[in-house]
Amino acid sequence: MAVDPDANKLREQANSQFKVIPTAEQVIADKKLTVEQIDLGKQLFFEPRLSKSQIISCNSCHSLGTGGSDNIRTSIGHGWQKGPRNSPTVLNAVFNGAQFWDGRAKDLAEQAKGPVQASVEMNATPKYVEDVLRSIPEYSEMFKKAFPGTQHPISFDNMAKALEAFESTLVTPHSKFDQFLTGKNTLNNLELKGMEHFMNKGCVACHSGINVGGQGYFPFGVVKKPGADILPVSDRGRYMVTKTATDDYVFRAGPLRNIALTPPYFHSGEVWDLEEAVAIMGTSQLGTTLAEDEIKAITAFLHTLTGEQPKVEYPTLPRRRPQTPKPGE
Amino acid sequence: MAVDPDANKLREQANSQFKVIPTAEQVIADKKLTVEQIDLGKQLFFEPRLSKSQIISCNSCHSLGTGGSDNIRTSIGHGWQKGPRNSPTVLNAVFNGAQFWDGRAKDLAEQAKGPVQASVEMNATPKYVEDVLRSIPEYSEMFKKAFPGTQHPISFDNMAKALEAFESTLVTPHSKFDQFLTGKNTLNNLELKGMEHFMNKGCVACHSGINVGGQGYFPFGVVKKPGADILPVSDRGRYMVTKTATDDYVFRAGPLRNIALTPPYFHSGEVWDLEEAVAIMGTSQLGTTLAEDEIKAITAFLHTLTGEQPKVEYPTLPRRRPQTPKPGE
Repeated sequence: MAVDPDANKLREQANSQFKVIPTAEQVIADKKLTVEQIDLGKQLFFEPRLSKSQIISCNSCHSLGTGGSDNIRTSIGHGWQKGPRNSPTVLNAVFNGAQFWDGRAKDLAEQAKGPVQASVEMNATPKYVEDVLRSIPEYSEMFKKAFPGTQHPISFDNMAKALEAFESTLVTPHSKFDQFLTGKNTLNNLELKGMEHFMNKGCVACHSGINVGGQGYFPFGVVKKPGADILPVSDRGRYMVTKTATDDYVFRAGPLRNIALTPPYFHSGEVWDLEEAVAIMGTSQLGTTLAEDEIKAITAFLHTLTGEQPKVEYPTLPRRRPQTPKPGE
Repeated sequence: MAVDPDANKLREQANSQFKVIPTAEQVIADKKLTVEQIDLGKQLFFEPRLSKSQIISCNSCHSLGTGGSDNIRTSIGHGWQKGPRNSPTVLNAVFNGAQFWDGRAKDLAEQAKGPVQASVEMNATPKYVEDVLRSIPEYSEMFKKAFPGTQHPISFDNMAKALEAFESTLVTPHSKFDQFLTGKNTLNNLELKGMEHFMNKGCVACHSGINVGGQGYFPFGVVKKPGADILPVSDRGRYMVTKTATDDYVFRAGPLRNIALTPPYFHSGEVWDLEEAVAIMGTSQLGTTLAEDEIKAITAFLHTLTGEQPKVEYPTLPRRRPQTPKPGE
């Protein structure tokens, strides 16, 4: 006869492996963000004129409506070009150890500069972005207030800092998982069983902390490399950043908060079903074939990581002026 | 010496030509819209999974951040294809006599079905849309509540009706112009002068009513056809709907509410500057070369048509399920 999992014992173990997600208010206080920086960052997050075509914004690939991601295999950018990797969620990204699948940006400000300039994404340049922002008087005002006492408030760097400020507020507290961690019995037996498997079968070795991942770097295929459909041979992960042989096919462990909201999975975005993703992790990372009931339990646990989604009012952007650069091809 | 315009006399004349814009509450009461229909329509308006690529939503080309339009020449849709005409604003579109530049849809529900299916826009089919919506249990619930007592609440027709309900609430009341109409002296002398020109030089013959346009059909080039850059010869306007010779190069008069927010101008989207657009209207429609100070005054008047932009909270969309159709190429 199956024995019910011991919730209190599991809570104790879980609290040694994971952390309750802070609220936006806590992050704002910790990082000393100002309302002016956050408001500016919010406008910029939805600002399509940061892209050369003037139709792509941060929110295009990191949509707040769909878990902070775009829910397609790999993002579609300027000229309908496909990006090389699945778009990571912006939600709770502030808690990751580094940004991008290969961790090549140390924080969200550094990250923000990437897609704006990438030719397959927004395809702009720092000068273009600054020209756009300087042509619109409302932005001059907002940058001045967000970055007081600086000589040139409108700059590509400050754009990135404002985006970081807003994105830092995009956290998803109060999940069933967090409520469980803080002492409420919010998880049912299947979810508890899944959490037990998650911790005791080794998933937690890479997926721990606030974001249940998003910290260290690990080879995709610790035990057994997945097929080329899921692990394309040309994308060698962190090796492309460090050029170190031991970083071949190494990626930052995926943060698993809200994972149920952001299919498809893995950097290739080739797996649409969360249960299938769990099974693949079993064989590739743990070297074990997880049983059907174990997969179901772990998946049920992963669903408890879905938190309260940020409430954001769509910003009214300031109107362009005749001198504002026009969209390019 | 210049005589100050007589505000009270102008107000009287203006109230015989234009109408104060109703509030969303008034529209909701008039059309007997339910909260459930509006909420569902709002989600659908931001729902990229209504498009084949699953990255294009209504809001992509009718962005609430930029005056209900996309502020580019002609919209970019599926596969980065360019649409044939400039995207009209969704704001206050409920007050137009008919929808699209050529008025080929009688209302917003009929309009909504167009872009979803157009191969250069969202490139979906009614069946695809219904399959997507039926695969997501939250949509079953929402459609049931929005369209109670019907046998198949989820249908392409009801999608269109829900979109119409939400879009009907996207009105922009309380502009300086509306406040003037209702008795406040909110317009300065330049704006009053512009309004006087607008009414007395003939602009008002096509641009009148609630939306200061958006009603009747008129040839672009009543007096003198603009050049092919602004009036492309291949786009014959309403002729393509009615196949009637007198409809050659006939378009619905553009609604001018919030016109300052939605450059570029005309169906070709080739004119970025509002003053230039006013000058072109003078020569093509009125057969007159407007003086510099007249153009400036009319443009100042047009700026008073900018109303309060709708406040909309970005919706959290329900998560896709394994059976949800995947994005297509």
